[in-house]
Amino acid sequence: MDALGYLAERGAQLEPYLEAALPPAGEEPSALHSAMRHLLFPGGKRLRPGLCFAACEAVGAAPAAALPAAAAVELLHTYSLVHDDLPCMDDDDERRGRPTVHVAYGEAVAVLAGDALQALAFAVLARAGDAAAVAELAGAAGSRELVGGQTLDLAFAAAPSSDASAIEGIHRMKSAALIAASIGLGARLGGAGAALHGRLVACGLELGVAFQIADDLLDAHADGACSLVRALGEPAARARAEALLAGVLARLADLGARAEPLRELARYAVRRDR
Amino acid sequence: MDALGYLAERGAQLEPYLEAALPPAGEEPSALHSAMRHLLFPGGKRLRPGLCFAACEAVGAAPAAALPAAAAVELLHTYSLVHDDLPCMDDDDERRGRPTVHVAYGEAVAVLAGDALQALAFAVLARAGDAAAVAELAGAAGSRELVGGQTLDLAFAAAPSSDASAIEGIHRMKSAALIAASIGLGARLGGAGAALHGRLVACGLELGVAFQIADDLLDAHADGACSLVRALGEPAARARAEALLAGVLARLADLGARAEPLRELARYAVRRDR
Repeated sequence: MDALGYLAERGAQLEPYLEAALPPAGEEPSALHSAMRHLLFPGGKRLRPGLCFAACEAVGAAPAAALPAAAAVELLHTYSLVHDDLPCMDDDDERRGRPTVHVAYGEAVAVLAGDALQALAFAVLARAGDAAAVAELAGAAGSRELVGGQTLDLAFAAAPSSDASAIEGIHRMKSAALIAASIGLGARLGGAGAALHGRLVACGLELGVAFQIADDLLDAHADGACSLVRALGEPAARARAEALLAGVLARLADLGARAEPLRELARYAVRRDR
Repeated sequence: MDALGYLAERGAQLEPYLEAALPPAGEEPSALHSAMRHLLFPGGKRLRPGLCFAACEAVGAAPAAALPAAAAVELLHTYSLVHDDLPCMDDDDERRGRPTVHVAYGEAVAVLAGDALQALAFAVLARAGDAAAVAELAGAAGSRELVGGQTLDLAFAAAPSSDASAIEGIHRMKSAALIAASIGLGARLGGAGAALHGRLVACGLELGVAFQIADDLLDAHADGACSLVRALGEPAARARAEALLAGVLARLADLGARAEPLRELARYAVRRDR
């Protein structure tokens, strides 16, 4: 099965679970509950949940074991997008062809919807009954990873440079940490031991950096200051992404057929067209 | 021991734990890490951690068992204050006699510091190794409790009424849910069974409403639209708070001497001077 087919199949498994995890849009306060759903339904590619399911399968478990984590990483990712779009952050009016949450519901409700989506991510993940999984997601979401990366990204935009290793460091925090946690949580809920879990998390970090390069390569506007494409030029950035992908695939080689969905998603994440 | 003495003693136990849980202010991104600490050190009365410790003692455990939860509820409370103060929310410039986080660090960093404090609350709580505790805090922090209450509070300020039961409903969500979770988590980490835990959570909800009335009674400005003091008048509001407190104390009566700190804190929360 190709990556898009896999994402569609696992997405169909995720949607009713996510739908049931969100309060109905009409439940009071209805502006808040509608705003929480605005960017989530319909969502994007559901790549992070896909990686979570695929990692769970790669360690030999049925993908359903990863459901709480798959939903949690998508909720966490969605909260981070809602806050990143705010006027005081990236100040974006549109995302995925629709008004951003603060444009549609106002700034206060957008901040609150993001806050509630983060809390819901932990509520849903807690259903898996594994406190170490909660610690893993909370670490990826915190000031040393996702939120720290967004802080550095804003500072970088105000004072851009061509320092490729600084840029890659920001990408590791802002994008790759949550991709690594998606894979790590899927492996953890699939019963992976510490060594295999650690190996898959390391793959996730490298894949996350390669994914961010691919994102920058696809960005027609290319208006992001913090971009390896801008710092290295397109051919060198593409080569870096391919080298990272090759490393990831090599590290997954001995996991056999059951890791094929994860390998397919890794290839797709780095080589996809928008 | 009186309530202030108890809060001082348990506060001394909490401070080094909280201090160690926060990245150093100088760690990059230092603006973010400084901003996370701004409202936390020195903090307020540390009432929620105090209630958490006292509930843990009330069910027969040593207070140290409650440390992860005591730190988590203070981190969660602090994040909610940072976001409540934002220009798009209550737009407050000062809190506890100091500039608010967005005044000191800018709006973007204030949003991010709040986000990171919420993630850290779950990271610290996860150390207790109890996924049900994570679910309890996440529920109190979510759109049906704390965040929903803040949403309703903002809507109420825009269209005030004197509907006392609507006001009390907002207080239950915005203030009381986290007070109840503070007590519930302390009891849970102290090993309370489901029946005792449920009873203490119910006490916490009533105490939380009484605490909010006391807060409104103490508020010299009294500029909050959503206030039972404004809706009922001072004597009736005071009577309501005392009636709630009496109910809480009655429900705690059979727990004996080990619940005396919890009873003392309940009296203090409702009758304190600012």
